[in-house]
Amino acid sequence: MPIRLDARDAGFEQAFAALLAAKREVSEDVDQVAASIIAEVRARGDEALLEYTSRFDRLELTPATLRVTEAEIEAAMAACTPEQLSALETARSRIEAYHLRQKPADSWSRDALGVESGWRWSAIEAVGLYVPGGTASYPSSVLMNAVPAKVAGVERLVMVAPTPRGESNPLVLAAARLAGIDEIYRIGGAQAVAALAHGTATIAPVAKIVGPGNAYVAAAKRRVFGTVGIDMIAGPSEVLVLADASANPDWIAADLLAQAEHDTASQSILITDDAALAGEVERAVEGQLKTLPRAEIAAASWADFGAVILVETLEAAIPLVDRLAPEHLEIITADPERLAGRIRNAGAIFLGGHTPEAIGDYVGGSNHVLPTARSARFSSGLGVPDFMKRTSLLKCDAGALRALAGAAVELAEAEGLQAHGRSVTIRLN
Amino acid sequence: MPIRLDARDAGFEQAFAALLAAKREVSEDVDQVAASIIAEVRARGDEALLEYTSRFDRLELTPATLRVTEAEIEAAMAACTPEQLSALETARSRIEAYHLRQKPADSWSRDALGVESGWRWSAIEAVGLYVPGGTASYPSSVLMNAVPAKVAGVERLVMVAPTPRGESNPLVLAAARLAGIDEIYRIGGAQAVAALAHGTATIAPVAKIVGPGNAYVAAAKRRVFGTVGIDMIAGPSEVLVLADASANPDWIAADLLAQAEHDTASQSILITDDAALAGEVERAVEGQLKTLPRAEIAAASWADFGAVILVETLEAAIPLVDRLAPEHLEIITADPERLAGRIRNAGAIFLGGHTPEAIGDYVGGSNHVLPTARSARFSSGLGVPDFMKRTSLLKCDAGALRALAGAAVELAEAEGLQAHGRSVTIRLN
Repeated sequence: MPIRLDARDAGFEQAFAALLAAKREVSEDVDQVAASIIAEVRARGDEALLEYTSRFDRLELTPATLRVTEAEIEAAMAACTPEQLSALETARSRIEAYHLRQKPADSWSRDALGVESGWRWSAIEAVGLYVPGGTASYPSSVLMNAVPAKVAGVERLVMVAPTPRGESNPLVLAAARLAGIDEIYRIGGAQAVAALAHGTATIAPVAKIVGPGNAYVAAAKRRVFGTVGIDMIAGPSEVLVLADASANPDWIAADLLAQAEHDTASQSILITDDAALAGEVERAVEGQLKTLPRAEIAAASWADFGAVILVETLEAAIPLVDRLAPEHLEIITADPERLAGRIRNAGAIFLGGHTPEAIGDYVGGSNHVLPTARSARFSSGLGVPDFMKRTSLLKCDAGALRALAGAAVELAEAEGLQAHGRSVTIRLN
Repeated sequence: MPIRLDARDAGFEQAFAALLAAKREVSEDVDQVAASIIAEVRARGDEALLEYTSRFDRLELTPATLRVTEAEIEAAMAACTPEQLSALETARSRIEAYHLRQKPADSWSRDALGVESGWRWSAIEAVGLYVPGGTASYPSSVLMNAVPAKVAGVERLVMVAPTPRGESNPLVLAAARLAGIDEIYRIGGAQAVAALAHGTATIAPVAKIVGPGNAYVAAAKRRVFGTVGIDMIAGPSEVLVLADASANPDWIAADLLAQAEHDTASQSILITDDAALAGEVERAVEGQLKTLPRAEIAAASWADFGAVILVETLEAAIPLVDRLAPEHLEIITADPERLAGRIRNAGAIFLGGHTPEAIGDYVGGSNHVLPTARSARFSSGLGVPDFMKRTSLLKCDAGALRALAGAAVELAEAEGLQAHGRSVTIRLN
């Protein structure tokens, strides 16, 4: 059974703090393994890459067969149903429309002293996208990572995806094609991250690597950070539903289970001011579990990490939500906008009873790559700016330089950096 | 002597690649030390923090004396000259004006299906700012980190700065006061990073840590990444001057030396299409070195890592600049804007002969915390968005949900996530 807390109980603060501190992920110590794989790929390139692919994916490749061919992509497209392709295209076009609104603006202006300043955004030249193999190989994640990159203007978008024993998901290749991915390699694990970061004879290096992966992939991404950019390190997914008596308990139960079915380490939490609703949701979860294909996973997640928290007022829930900083927050109350406006920490907020998280997972248009494990306190979901960088610009004429010289030289002297000061004064005569 | 390359030479590509690959930083293996310091501070809090401060900074403190007092800050302000305070205030107000332009915009709109979507930016609640001690304790860096945080709306901005044997720079405290920093602690090293990330009885934890530090600080920041956000890991600073025959060789020499005086690992590079200018700059550097207080550092940096690269045309320099991806790029040519518009990778660009980098270091208004070590290929300088996070927002009504349901369910089924599909269909009846 999930834990049940009541904010009015004496021991609540301690129990809530324990909920916050609970680790849902086994921290495997894979860092040394990842480091040695990276060193091998860096030293021996394709040769090491092929060896690891043989060992870990049971797949024998050559440099010539590392890359997925045009014919294979066409075959994958043909293997999808028209309904699947249409759904992928609906998702792609909606994700594109949402992310086009995120393109950041350049700036350039002249101030009263005559100093011109601003900045200019440009796309990262080449980006690698890691796509997990097996059951976590989601076409929707391909779209969510690739579409913003292409909106940003990334010219070379390279996908890597392991194909254990040669098996792959045709929808993943179809999504890659629809999203405009430029190169696809059938590799995975730390070796794929190493190849993207350092390059091999067959695979040219990229400047940034995004996308989720297992513990080895995460460790490898941490290791190559600096040589290339990386996105966040994703943890198990989570949803927090904030609901009042107006909410439909069956709908909430369905949403909690949609999260729970991802992984036994997923977390689903309900916070409500209505004790009756809490009970109804708990019963509905038990009922719906009975007919769910992934019932075993969902039941384990709900039992181990699920939580139902009763609060006296919705007002009292706000600080709890901010402390949990959920990846996904559904607000199913009489006035969801009002509550949403008062919450600081959440990766994404879904407003009202007709906005299940699953809509945002696929076709809402907003990104489903969101900060997990309380990192919404300090980070954002994936977006167009993650695939661009800002170059700052500054221009003085002789008059502007003269106006600023005194203050600059004063600070340079105070910092003991006389050559800094001289680079200003030498221009004044 | 710095290396001198000519793009027309047969061995150029190899020599340029070697320049790109040269490591300027000794990679000290300090990770295990940082890990054990973090573990101790996490387990024993203030007690461990005070022990490390005693050991590394030779300073005996108690929980009550960890924090810098109001009286000490007032005394530091009084120890600054009026000219220094005025220069700090000029810098602060110009940095503020520039960064106010960076506040990101919220978005909210309704599409043809009736789906409402957008996002909202909010400030990170609490941020820690690491300020190095000793000779690298720069008041300008306090302003460059703190002012954007305050512009972003960070409510609790906490500075940590070691004070070896109790010594500190009054301008650092004055800059902290002017920038509106809320709390200052006299601690440093991995132990300060650990205290900020995990909190102690005296120091409440923050959600993000920014600011430069030594190898131990960098290792500690990498370790706590995930528990808190971090900014980039800064390497030695670098400047690239791109100049033609119109440029003044003495001014260029002063700029190369302003970079070289930072650190023996700093790098100064000149790229020009004018062989005569190259020679004049080299001679001017030698001449100016003779009267420079930090001549020893600057001479070592110039000899070990300096480079002069001759190109046939400025056009031919563009791909070289993009591969070097310099932290600072000065363009001193007849038409600097035209060249700047063609360059993709640079942290900051300084346009024309009257814009020495030192103006941007102090009072131009743009940020001097910029991507080093070729990371301008994938990252940006520090800015207001680094102190904020974006929450995505989505709202469907019954009609919008109905319009999107088919595609969402199709994709959920294709991914084997039936509970996702059910969370949509359950709302349709």
